[in-house]
Amino acid sequence: MPTFPDKAEKFIDWYLEVLDAAELTDKRYPVKGMNVWTPYGFQARRQLDAIMIREIERTGSLPVEFPALIPQTEFQKEKDHIKGFDAQVYWVTKGGATDLDVPLVLRPTSETAMYPVFALWVRSHKDLPLNVYQIVNTFRYETKTTRPFLRVREIHFFEEHTCQVDEAAATERVRSNLAAFEGMARSFVLPYVAVRRPEWDKFPGAFYSVALDIPVGGARTLQIGTTHHYRENFSGPYGIQYEATDGSTKHVHQTTFGLSERLVGAVVSVHGDAKGVVFPSSLAPYQVVVVPIVGGSGGEAVLAYARELVERLRARGLRVHLDDSDERPGAKYYRWETHGVPLRVEVGRREAEQKSVTVADRLGSKRPIGPDGVDDGIVAALAEFDERLRAKAQATFAASFTVARALDELRASTTVRVIAWCGSEACGHKVEEAIEGALLGTPEGPLPIDLGVPGPCVGCGTADSRWALAGQPL
Amino acid sequence: MPTFPDKAEKFIDWYLEVLDAAELTDKRYPVKGMNVWTPYGFQARRQLDAIMIREIERTGSLPVEFPALIPQTEFQKEKDHIKGFDAQVYWVTKGGATDLDVPLVLRPTSETAMYPVFALWVRSHKDLPLNVYQIVNTFRYETKTTRPFLRVREIHFFEEHTCQVDEAAATERVRSNLAAFEGMARSFVLPYVAVRRPEWDKFPGAFYSVALDIPVGGARTLQIGTTHHYRENFSGPYGIQYEATDGSTKHVHQTTFGLSERLVGAVVSVHGDAKGVVFPSSLAPYQVVVVPIVGGSGGEAVLAYARELVERLRARGLRVHLDDSDERPGAKYYRWETHGVPLRVEVGRREAEQKSVTVADRLGSKRPIGPDGVDDGIVAALAEFDERLRAKAQATFAASFTVARALDELRASTTVRVIAWCGSEACGHKVEEAIEGALLGTPEGPLPIDLGVPGPCVGCGTADSRWALAGQPL
Repeated sequence: MPTFPDKAEKFIDWYLEVLDAAELTDKRYPVKGMNVWTPYGFQARRQLDAIMIREIERTGSLPVEFPALIPQTEFQKEKDHIKGFDAQVYWVTKGGATDLDVPLVLRPTSETAMYPVFALWVRSHKDLPLNVYQIVNTFRYETKTTRPFLRVREIHFFEEHTCQVDEAAATERVRSNLAAFEGMARSFVLPYVAVRRPEWDKFPGAFYSVALDIPVGGARTLQIGTTHHYRENFSGPYGIQYEATDGSTKHVHQTTFGLSERLVGAVVSVHGDAKGVVFPSSLAPYQVVVVPIVGGSGGEAVLAYARELVERLRARGLRVHLDDSDERPGAKYYRWETHGVPLRVEVGRREAEQKSVTVADRLGSKRPIGPDGVDDGIVAALAEFDERLRAKAQATFAASFTVARALDELRASTTVRVIAWCGSEACGHKVEEAIEGALLGTPEGPLPIDLGVPGPCVGCGTADSRWALAGQPL
Repeated sequence: MPTFPDKAEKFIDWYLEVLDAAELTDKRYPVKGMNVWTPYGFQARRQLDAIMIREIERTGSLPVEFPALIPQTEFQKEKDHIKGFDAQVYWVTKGGATDLDVPLVLRPTSETAMYPVFALWVRSHKDLPLNVYQIVNTFRYETKTTRPFLRVREIHFFEEHTCQVDEAAATERVRSNLAAFEGMARSFVLPYVAVRRPEWDKFPGAFYSVALDIPVGGARTLQIGTTHHYRENFSGPYGIQYEATDGSTKHVHQTTFGLSERLVGAVVSVHGDAKGVVFPSSLAPYQVVVVPIVGGSGGEAVLAYARELVERLRARGLRVHLDDSDERPGAKYYRWETHGVPLRVEVGRREAEQKSVTVADRLGSKRPIGPDGVDDGIVAALAEFDERLRAKAQATFAASFTVARALDELRASTTVRVIAWCGSEACGHKVEEAIEGALLGTPEGPLPIDLGVPGPCVGCGTADSRWALAGQPL
């Protein structure tokens, strides 16, 4: 069996080879940075989407879908926003043989598609809050090196857009988005940190941005989502206003919340190991693969037993695959390990006779179950697997942060660094140069390590400082 | 309350006003033919998609997603196909400020996106059949008048693409697609006819096309889907070939199966009436709306009872909306009728005291239920509503076809016409001219009216003829 490059030493090589082996995507599509969602990858994405939908709809957000094409005239209404996206949008300039009167942008994000319509939807304070979301693909003409799920030109994207009565209500919506993400992250088994980005790194047009960063080894971090407070920055140019209870006309305060297919990349990066991908049961296309071992006589009885078992587990609501192909058992074990299936259930002649099973989980634990309580035992083994996966990820997460007291300690960082920072852009850039990465910003909640008071800024030595994070965003 | 134009007399006016009143879509998006899926419309579409997914996955088809952008070089490989689509594709010619080396087509359908990759996926007879589907949006630069759900420029689209070992297996797949659609149509409560299109109206590049047509009043028909047999027409140019069991190399035979958001238009057109939209329970965003009537004293008890009821019905798996807004009950009744909600449950003071309800369904039946068996009674009322809706639609369907024995009888048609046809294009065009519409083709199964032997062709009088349908496609 082939082995993968070392994850710690050669992370990107490991990542790319593991993805190929797991058949989550096909990179051979003839446009750079646009990849194919294979059946296996699509089924993982389906679980991911379902979790996002469940958690956001719990907060009262409603699904919508706006068109993918945005007229240039609408796209250019908010000046900072257009500056931020101008270099990386795809332009549709022709329909058939006809040059379009107004060129259309293929949405890089949907502010400029939605807000002209929000201006029609919002009339009165009774229409507020307006909380809607969509799950669509967005497009960016990416000039950097593309990587499946991490940096692509067609991006599977979740975006919530809201209108609130005032700044405080919008601040509260940002908080409620962070709470919704906490629920999602728990399901994805992804420890993360919410970080308020520095001014120079906020979303084009935002008042402020809070990013969701995931450490993925060394000083590397992956921004898998953001929530932004827009104040009136868009509602002004787009004329989204309402009649308040006192009869006055006010602009709404807006927020957005975005998540992307990078979540798939994060799950692979955080949980994957020397044998390939590891899926938590929430996202696994198959939570259980049943492998009948039918060499020699009695094969039919083993197969019949395996089929019965599969039906019973499906009736329990599990996603189960029966691998009755004619490959050798060893090849099957290898395949489903690379594919990250949480549980492999082996049934041979002895198991069929005893009505038992042998269960191996993706973290290496293996044991017989039965003859009594086989189904309950498998369900319990899956839950135990998730808990161990969570504990493992949490331990790695905690070890991903260390305090650095001086700029020199940022060079050749082997973890994400926690530093004291005065808040100035000048010192921020000194940090970025030292770590050869980014000042991620100030954490919104507690970190998984003990921190005292921040001490003097690593850049200028001023005592008035706060804790900030620095890393190397992928 | 406003009234709608007469459905029979002014169908399109009726259709457009009913859609607006039901808030299924917002046409005010600033690109012609690209509309917004509102929360209400999106939730109907979600049910529609779930039914399509359920039925197609039952046949072993797997979900995928291919990129939305197709290089011009791939797009032009099959000559008839490109001829069929050349005039109606959107071209992406620029990324940022850069002219693209190879212009990209925004997919009008995905043959030319998928087949270069299928050529990599299919190697051996063991890889066959390859049955995959995706639900994505497609784009057509439509020059005719656009109508929400019926003719739009961004189309919500279901497309299955398959590779089979030979022509017979592909023919069988077309049959299995038709069987899968039978299951979908039953859920959608949409009577339809499967029609083999004449040569001059088949899909560009197909060997033959079978369309799914729905009569929507007068001679009007709506093509809501198609399944095509491609033989080797695409596998040749795209090089999709496999090693057969005898060691020889063969091209696969391909099929596709497409359905679109026209299904939403069909549901509105078939079931809608003078009061607005009527949803079958399978597609209704809300299957039940509970309206508490809280005028006067005792309002709190009524509301508490209504909330309890809503929770209990949701626990039964129903999609339930509590309308506790401060509008008058009459305004609420009107709103939910226009929106097509199958059941309205009214609870006032008497109902709260008696623990009963009053149930009104969208077809006009109204009765008290309870105090015993309220929940079961509501579930039963919903099932009864569906059965009456089905019977009504089936009766209208049966009345939508009449036999015409001569070209003259096709003029000013008030139904879809069933005619004897020799099969020639010349006679086909005579029929099309007479009916001011299209020769739809030959039905694949029985029609809902008694037919004898066809008799002489209406065009040329030859005795060698078959039954065919003629109508006015929307």
